[in-house]
Amino acid sequence: MTRLREARFGGRRKARLDAALKAAATAVEAELAALIPNHDAPHARLLRAMRYAALGGGKRLRPFLVLECAKLFDADPAGSLRAACAVEMVHCYSLVHDDLPAMDDDEMRRGRPTTHVEFDEATAILAGDALLTLAFETLAAPETHADAAVRAELVLVLARAAGMNGMVGGQMIDLEAEGTALDLAQITTLQAMKTGALITAACEAGAILGRADATARRALVAFARDLGLAFQIADDLLDVEGEAARVGKGVGKDAAAGKATFVSALGIDQARARALSLAEAAACRLAGFGERAETLRSAARFVVERQH
Amino acid sequence: MTRLREARFGGRRKARLDAALKAAATAVEAELAALIPNHDAPHARLLRAMRYAALGGGKRLRPFLVLECAKLFDADPAGSLRAACAVEMVHCYSLVHDDLPAMDDDEMRRGRPTTHVEFDEATAILAGDALLTLAFETLAAPETHADAAVRAELVLVLARAAGMNGMVGGQMIDLEAEGTALDLAQITTLQAMKTGALITAACEAGAILGRADATARRALVAFARDLGLAFQIADDLLDVEGEAARVGKGVGKDAAAGKATFVSALGIDQARARALSLAEAAACRLAGFGERAETLRSAARFVVERQH
Repeated sequence: MTRLREARFGGRRKARLDAALKAAATAVEAELAALIPNHDAPHARLLRAMRYAALGGGKRLRPFLVLECAKLFDADPAGSLRAACAVEMVHCYSLVHDDLPAMDDDEMRRGRPTTHVEFDEATAILAGDALLTLAFETLAAPETHADAAVRAELVLVLARAAGMNGMVGGQMIDLEAEGTALDLAQITTLQAMKTGALITAACEAGAILGRADATARRALVAFARDLGLAFQIADDLLDVEGEAARVGKGVGKDAAAGKATFVSALGIDQARARALSLAEAAACRLAGFGERAETLRSAARFVVERQH
Repeated sequence: MTRLREARFGGRRKARLDAALKAAATAVEAELAALIPNHDAPHARLLRAMRYAALGGGKRLRPFLVLECAKLFDADPAGSLRAACAVEMVHCYSLVHDDLPAMDDDEMRRGRPTTHVEFDEATAILAGDALLTLAFETLAAPETHADAAVRAELVLVLARAAGMNGMVGGQMIDLEAEGTALDLAQITTLQAMKTGALITAACEAGAILGRADATARRALVAFARDLGLAFQIADDLLDVEGEAARVGKGVGKDAAAGKATFVSALGIDQARARALSLAEAAACRLAGFGERAETLRSAARFVVERQH
């Protein structure tokens, strides 16, 4: 293939990926708005804070992964969308709690005041709690899948990824590590728990929704692990290199907080090389799915090239 | 029946209830200790805080209700114990978050420093998050019940009770109501969400575990609603009348915080009469279960007579 044809091919792929990401984000936004009521109630403030935290922004990468993985097996789109929203609720709750003054103390997120700044700390804590709870309520409801075994397994996989041995455990390690020099193995463990577990659960949820066989499910989990690591390295690079305006949150905060990242452990050039090779490895994990997985393969490349 | 025989009969019932409560508490304590690992891990601090928040105290009323209700239908004891622990985890997480400085700002609980005092705020927030998540993980795991439909329904019922339209929503109303005069209807709504919903879910979980028919399930839900309301009124009375040492937490805090309670709305005498009549009404809801429900009926009376 000539360089020109390659560039054209890459451009088409990128356009297709962008369209798929946009379509997923639009569908997820609408479904989240339907799942989080906006009515006049004694606890209306809580509902407003939940909507503030969950609506109107974000790349929606995790629900996109749920939807794309479920599509590989022709899973029911309506149920997949609900599961995708459940995973996104867990992501949004984690951002709300991580931003709290007692945690990372961030005042801006996605170019807007964080939830505890827009409302108050108590409301932000409760909105996070309620989003986490609603995620499991959504998965367990019969509308998500006709087979209760699928629903129970979705709950189990998401809870394991989000809980003490996954995301929350990772955040604990991250908080304790501030100001200490973690080695590469420790940073990798931290990342696998704090951000990797939920990304893996997103892909695994797609496999569960589609009743994938063990081989297909393992392939998607392996894809997700490589992708998640590539994603985190890219995030660390953005923190060092990004412009505050483009990223929409404070930049250089990791270094200021004395946080060990892949960039601090590997240096910028090695970190970038590592992210690129992980993205390629992720894409290769999906060889067995053929052309159907092209959007997911493009997504793996996208996460390391993104500007925000 | 002479007064003497009545007193003897009441004494025997109380002794049986105390034995059942103690047995439930012991089993729940051991199971919670097994479900929350205590091993050396990078996130060991989180696990320690979870164990601190969940172990070593409390009446264990909610798990007791799960176990007793499940027993009415001869449900598998091991699975019922797991479900009982899941409900207790949700209760414990709610205490940890409610005690935070941004919320009720309590420094003592069950005669010990609260979790954020013993550890720190960030750890307490994360420990609460992880306990909530572990509750759903526990319910969804195959060990809890062989039938996935039972597991999914347990998750659904607990999530609805704990979430935006239940416990968390009630806490939001409670926080917003500080310093304002709620009327009796508003206080009743608040209580039904903040504490009633989880007590109802505990009894309903027992019915689900035992695959109760619709009539039996409705009876247990009705029992739980009366019991929950009686329990909250008794709690409000204890706040006014209790001794700090016996209750193990700050007393008179509600009045100091300007919180509207059943006692502030009804006065002490009317509140006590209301609690007693609700407890009797709760006991009557279980008439259809005959002698088997005697412990549950005693429990309804116990919650309004308790000293702490």
